[in-house]
Amino acid sequence: MATYGLIDYDDASPEVRAVYDDIRAVRQTDYINNFWKALAHDPPTLRRTWESIKQIMAPGALDPLTKEMIYIAVSTTNQCGYCIASHTASAQQKGMTPEMFAELMAVVGMANETNRLATGWQVEIDERYRK
Amino acid sequence: MATYGLIDYDDASPEVRAVYDDIRAVRQTDYINNFWKALAHDPPTLRRTWESIKQIMAPGALDPLTKEMIYIAVSTTNQCGYCIASHTASAQQKGMTPEMFAELMAVVGMANETNRLATGWQVEIDERYRK
Amino acid sequence: MATYGLIDYDDASPEVRAVYDDIRAVRQTDYINNFWKALAHDPPTLRRTWESIKQIMAPGALDPLTKEMIYIAVSTTNQCGYCIASHTASAQQKGMTPEMFAELMAVVGMANETNRLATGWQVEIDERYRK
Amino acid sequence: MATYGLIDYDDASPEVRAVYDDIRAVRQTDYINNFWKALAHDPPTLRRTWESIKQIMAPGALDPLTKEMIYIAVSTTNQCGYCIASHTASAQQKGMTPEMFAELMAVVGMANETNRLATGWQVEIDERYRK
Amino acid sequence: MATYGLIDYDDASPEVRAVYDDIRAVRQTDYINNFWKALAHDPPTLRRTWESIKQIMAPGALDPLTKEMIYIAVSTTNQCGYCIASHTASAQQKGMTPEMFAELMAVVGMANETNRLATGWQVEIDERYRK
Amino acid sequence: MATYGLIDYDDASPEVRAVYDDIRAVRQTDYINNFWKALAHDPPTLRRTWESIKQIMAPGALDPLTKEMIYIAVSTTNQCGYCIASHTASAQQKGMTPEMFAELMAVVGMANETNRLATGWQVEIDERYRK
Repeated sequence: MATYGLIDYDDASPEVRAVYDDIRAVRQTDYINNFWKALAHDPPTLRRTWESIKQIMAPGALDPLTKEMIYIAVSTTNQCGYCIASHTASAQQKGMTPEMFAELMAVVGMANETNRLATGWQVEIDERYRK
Repeated sequence: MATYGLIDYDDASPEVRAVYDDIRAVRQTDYINNFWKALAHDPPTLRRTWESIKQIMAPGALDPLTKEMIYIAVSTTNQCGYCIASHTASAQQKGMTPEMFAELMAVVGMANETNRLATGWQVEIDERYRK
Repeated sequence: MATYGLIDYDDASPEVRAVYDDIRAVRQTDYINNFWKALAHDPPTLRRTWESIKQIMAPGALDPLTKEMIYIAVSTTNQCGYCIASHTASAQQKGMTPEMFAELMAVVGMANETNRLATGWQVEIDERYRK
Repeated sequence: MATYGLIDYDDASPEVRAVYDDIRAVRQTDYINNFWKALAHDPPTLRRTWESIKQIMAPGALDPLTKEMIYIAVSTTNQCGYCIASHTASAQQKGMTPEMFAELMAVVGMANETNRLATGWQVEIDERYRK
Repeated sequence: MATYGLIDYDDASPEVRAVYDDIRAVRQTDYINNFWKALAHDPPTLRRTWESIKQIMAPGALDPLTKEMIYIAVSTTNQCGYCIASHTASAQQKGMTPEMFAELMAVVGMANETNRLATGWQVEIDERYRK
Repeated sequence: MATYGLIDYDDASPEVRAVYDDIRAVRQTDYINNFWKALAHDPPTLRRTWESIKQIMAPGALDPLTKEMIYIAVSTTNQCGYCIASHTASAQQKGMTPEMFAELMAVVGMANETNRLATGWQVEIDERYRK
């Protein structure tokens, strides 16, 4: 199921349970997905990763659904099957419609295409875009 | 400036000029950036790429600014300098604030991190996320 | 099991068997893993790849376990499921503890994150780091 | 120099200065490299990223030099010019010799090659490596 | 089977059927593979992608088999399991022999290796190769 | 110019000169490009990499120009500026026309796009393509 297996709530140390409890509270669900159960073998990384995600994915200048779609864009570009599956589920739960998903994929595909056209044709950055 | 150089409007064939004209009309600017001027050596790809981008980036279930930010997310993940520079400029022109950019980058960075944690720890996809 | 199937020892040509024998001798095991059995359909690549790996992974300025962990870092970044599984097993056999694996993953994740922050924010290389 | 420019110490807010001060103290140097000066436009990400790196790169089950080399392995695989330049400098400062660098590159190159051979030949994960 | 399932011919809208019919006519087969059946949930992307592929993969300055092998080279570099499987099948159908496949993989592997050696050693582009 | 600088012929050890001599003989040119001059700091990798490339890029089931174009396809997908520049030059020298280059780029771009569409839509491999 994972390199060192998955740690369920009942088998978790108090340190790990505290993170699981916070995930449940913030996400308003009892479900802890496999990613966290695998990372639980490394409590400092479990905590740091969760705290970072909690901070980053919170509403701000961008809304949570937009952030989930950006997550899917990155995960698709990197070909990460786990992340595509889990973040597609999260995005759907936050209101992503099939139409939004379809447009998201179209942009992701196109960007991956033009990234290579720009680099392969060795296009120099325009003076006006330089920093 | 590019593998076969850049083709300016004045030196372009009627076929290429037609695409340049449409880019100018749709984007409401006189400026044609280097990407198109390099691709102009291959008129069918120039046309097909522009027509595809025009269709994909138009307002739909997602607004144009969100689409530009997804473009930046992909380009950053792929480390495409040209595309980051040009789409950051486009997104700023469409209203991306420094705060939005900062949150975009935070999500992109985090997604790239957790993509590797998920794969490196060999986490199996949860039953409920499987298609 | 692989594009052209796997070639077992008993079905292998003398040329392939010679490589299998050397793998067994160097690794001190009877087991030939699927990677080599698939590559055996191309004996020159089988031999060249094995000779290269044997040379590169031998003790030198870096010890073999460090080299295995570098292998895992690359394979995780590339999202290569086969290579993560096989090199994690090799590293564990050479003494990688769960604590070492956890720290390895934390560094790999972080590096993938900051690679994108550096590129996405278009950070120029400091004068003192330039070659 | 970066999307929103670089923020020097003298122009930084107290919040940013506090991070800069900690970087200087932990690294025992007055130099703040461009990466942090660019990120300073987003103080929460600046702080979170620095705190994460400080925690992850500290001595533990792996020593700091090994961690720097893993960082280079990832950055090279991702083709991140900035990160290769800055982490090669850090690794050299922590004792990486030219011989160690050469072996590191040889492993990184080889892993990138065999990652593709394994995937391209569609090699199935051996029963004994499955989790 | 896919995020929103697969759409078979009998369940398809006239718009989707028209694309399926063209795929069958151009490829001279009754078989519609899963990729198209998944994309059929987004008819404009289905059509645009098919029209683009039909144009790009047609005989031209490069023959169709060479194009299929380039497709495999990219898909292998990106670690896209679906694309490797389907384009390997297409290439075999167009005449790719096991010897050609083996040489293709050898080049793909080597290019992935030297890409990292060039970048990791921070090799500057030779004056004569600059554009 | 590179992490440890470039080693010119006149400053090279006999071991390195022997490789340089062979490169010149096989390529029928006096020019040694920067890649080899940087790698020369690690003679075993210099030799192994050259011997591998010499073997892999030789005429076989695929001709040398096709192999150069596959090299460009991989280098473009990986966004390796050095490799794109040097292999584009090599391919042009071996007869790649602007038309061939344009079609190569079109395929590379398209493959990068559909790789993400296939993975992002979570398309399962068709029964008939499974190995």
